[in-house]
Amino acid sequence: MNTTELIRKKRDGLNLSQDEILYLINSYTAGKIPDYQFSAFLMAAYFSGMNTEETAALTNAMLYSGEVIDLSGIPGSKVDKHSTGGVGDKTSLILAPIVAAAGVNVPMISGRGLGHTGGTLDKLESIPGFNTSLDLDNYKRVISKCGAVLIGQTKEIAPADKLIYSLRDVTATVESIPLITASIMSKKLAEGIDGLVLDIKTGSGAFMKTVEDSRALAMSLMNTAKAFDKKVIGMITDMNQPLGHYIGNWLEVYESVKVLQGEDVKDLNKVTFALSGAMIYLGGKAESIDHGIEISKELIKSGKAFDKFLEITELQGGDTEVLKFPQRYPQAMYHEKVYAEKSGFVTKVDTFQVGVAALELGAGRLTKEDKIDPVAGLIFHPKIGEYVKEGDLLCDIYSNFKDKIDGAKKRIERGLELTSGAFDTPKIIYEIIE
Amino acid sequence: MNTTELIRKKRDGLNLSQDEILYLINSYTAGKIPDYQFSAFLMAAYFSGMNTEETAALTNAMLYSGEVIDLSGIPGSKVDKHSTGGVGDKTSLILAPIVAAAGVNVPMISGRGLGHTGGTLDKLESIPGFNTSLDLDNYKRVISKCGAVLIGQTKEIAPADKLIYSLRDVTATVESIPLITASIMSKKLAEGIDGLVLDIKTGSGAFMKTVEDSRALAMSLMNTAKAFDKKVIGMITDMNQPLGHYIGNWLEVYESVKVLQGEDVKDLNKVTFALSGAMIYLGGKAESIDHGIEISKELIKSGKAFDKFLEITELQGGDTEVLKFPQRYPQAMYHEKVYAEKSGFVTKVDTFQVGVAALELGAGRLTKEDKIDPVAGLIFHPKIGEYVKEGDLLCDIYSNFKDKIDGAKKRIERGLELTSGAFDTPKIIYEIIE
Repeated sequence: MNTTELIRKKRDGLNLSQDEILYLINSYTAGKIPDYQFSAFLMAAYFSGMNTEETAALTNAMLYSGEVIDLSGIPGSKVDKHSTGGVGDKTSLILAPIVAAAGVNVPMISGRGLGHTGGTLDKLESIPGFNTSLDLDNYKRVISKCGAVLIGQTKEIAPADKLIYSLRDVTATVESIPLITASIMSKKLAEGIDGLVLDIKTGSGAFMKTVEDSRALAMSLMNTAKAFDKKVIGMITDMNQPLGHYIGNWLEVYESVKVLQGEDVKDLNKVTFALSGAMIYLGGKAESIDHGIEISKELIKSGKAFDKFLEITELQGGDTEVLKFPQRYPQAMYHEKVYAEKSGFVTKVDTFQVGVAALELGAGRLTKEDKIDPVAGLIFHPKIGEYVKEGDLLCDIYSNFKDKIDGAKKRIERGLELTSGAFDTPKIIYEIIE
Repeated sequence: MNTTELIRKKRDGLNLSQDEILYLINSYTAGKIPDYQFSAFLMAAYFSGMNTEETAALTNAMLYSGEVIDLSGIPGSKVDKHSTGGVGDKTSLILAPIVAAAGVNVPMISGRGLGHTGGTLDKLESIPGFNTSLDLDNYKRVISKCGAVLIGQTKEIAPADKLIYSLRDVTATVESIPLITASIMSKKLAEGIDGLVLDIKTGSGAFMKTVEDSRALAMSLMNTAKAFDKKVIGMITDMNQPLGHYIGNWLEVYESVKVLQGEDVKDLNKVTFALSGAMIYLGGKAESIDHGIEISKELIKSGKAFDKFLEITELQGGDTEVLKFPQRYPQAMYHEKVYAEKSGFVTKVDTFQVGVAALELGAGRLTKEDKIDPVAGLIFHPKIGEYVKEGDLLCDIYSNFKDKIDGAKKRIERGLELTSGAFDTPKIIYEIIE
């Protein structure tokens, strides 16, 4: 095949065959197509798009560039969740133990913090000793023992994605639905799952700013999952404000523990239970999503979900004492409080600014080499629609860098809009697509 | 500046500033932007386009990547012509001596055959001894002596274009009007010209298949020329059939000599004189294009144009005897005649097929390493609108490769459409844009 002709074909809006896509991915991964041709192909795909068949073929080629984990030896369904990422999104930490406690296996391969959003791996690693770098043998061992495992991408999983993602990152070809779809699904399908629940975030703190864009991504992901005979449910959930209140790695573990111990953090619980409910339903342990939600709540009440979290943590080498006694966790050197300078209804939160504030305090990475500070971050108190009085506490800021605090404070203040008129509470879940 | 952000900007349809374009071209030429980012930028530019200012900035950056020849020491106007290329297009060989004989300098830097179309350099080199690789000193010496010079691109001229063209060629980003414009104009503006006449070919044998596309390219080229304060005239001329009858390198020199000696090859003369007339007009030696056409015809009649051709040839080291006595030129080993198998009006010529036939006989290159055979090619007799009788001679085929003849014959036969109804002669010149 002629690579230039394939680029031209995609450029001219024609569809590529399965064989042509396989040729492109295999040759690129093998170093037989140079970066400069592949990046031109990526940009052509950005503009011309790819249909369902092409996206499935791309996913397939990327999936089989590496190992597809076989979990058939482990009894029971295997269901994972994927979120497109947001600020304060700690649902994975809560739902993995819930779903595992319900008898559905959760084989979860997650990522690190990206831009202004946190990553499940960074959060888990704030638990002393927690090892997210298990090899595939230990991955299988942990999930067969406790029904859940949470690790990072290994070199065996979809190596083509790693290669292609690096190229997309420097060629402005990240924001393409078919390319995003293949990147996500090639990794998720490698986990050995039977079913997948998708949490597509929408709003000021999300990658997709509108419900329409989020729906388009959800449909693309779901169509691809179906092309691989996986059960799938998609949810479009709100990211116009942080999910829950705690933002930062240990802070999010802490809020997750509170939810697992029975605290009701309204928006966080609603999204988490919807997702866990859908996972339990897909895993065959509930008759409907709603039934799965009821089961989730019971598993919290009975303490079984929290016990499962301790069990997973222990099997992955983590210190369970800090989960049981979080007050023993080290504190950040600096703690600053931000108060409201006027009264009004919270009408808008610039979630991106809030995320960047946490990142700059030490909760995220500005460059690949930056080290995460587990205690850095913030507690963001107000929710859209609430009335705030002058002098009310808006935010607790935690950092080990004194010089970072003022910047974060300014971002928080700029990120919050208070007006005199009343304002409706936004939706938490916009759509559930089955 | 951040290269990824500039790619994103172009991708999102925003305009780049002069500084941003300069940064991209200078950094790429200096090896500071990798090929994979530049090819993504090219594909983004292919889709998003570039406006007049951006195209001029791109041309400027590419122009000043190399030397801009200073011909101010040579008295008189300097006017060149550029054609987008076609089959049998030998106008440069005829108009350069005409215009020089009229007292307007013609500093012409040309290219080699590309795809199914011939190149002026290859044609000139079929004249024994003709040297198209003059250095810049000899370039100036020849033009100051005889008023014209015809050479190939030197390494000093727009090196960025050479680099970028190689990348475009393998990334399916050739067919972009702003990129084509900058490529052509950066080389033409380096020649040291005051004025430029553009011959934009349109039709089955041209790069641009429709008059609309040709007009768009003409406008882009003309706007760029004007941005550099150059006088410019654009013509859209027909390439729905070969120009003149002779196709192949020596064969085209031979037909050019015939025209310079007074023969009237209807379409070829019409296009050539329009172009030379416009050049003489732009050079200030005629009051209008029509007046320039009259001067052109007189210079043919008086023998001055042919004498000028001999003078140029001699100064560039070429053998003038073969021009004066073309019958002495060596003959191809094989000469085959193709006759009409039925009668009818010529309604359509697949000029691309005719061009490929000549190429395969040895007149062009299939790979960069192929050697041109100067005597290979064909004489294509019928013109659209003419009535052909069964048994009439359609084509003379010349080659030194016996096994290539049948293929060429088939292409010629397939490339010609004969129908019973009468058909209008097509236009030769569609538009003249001043």
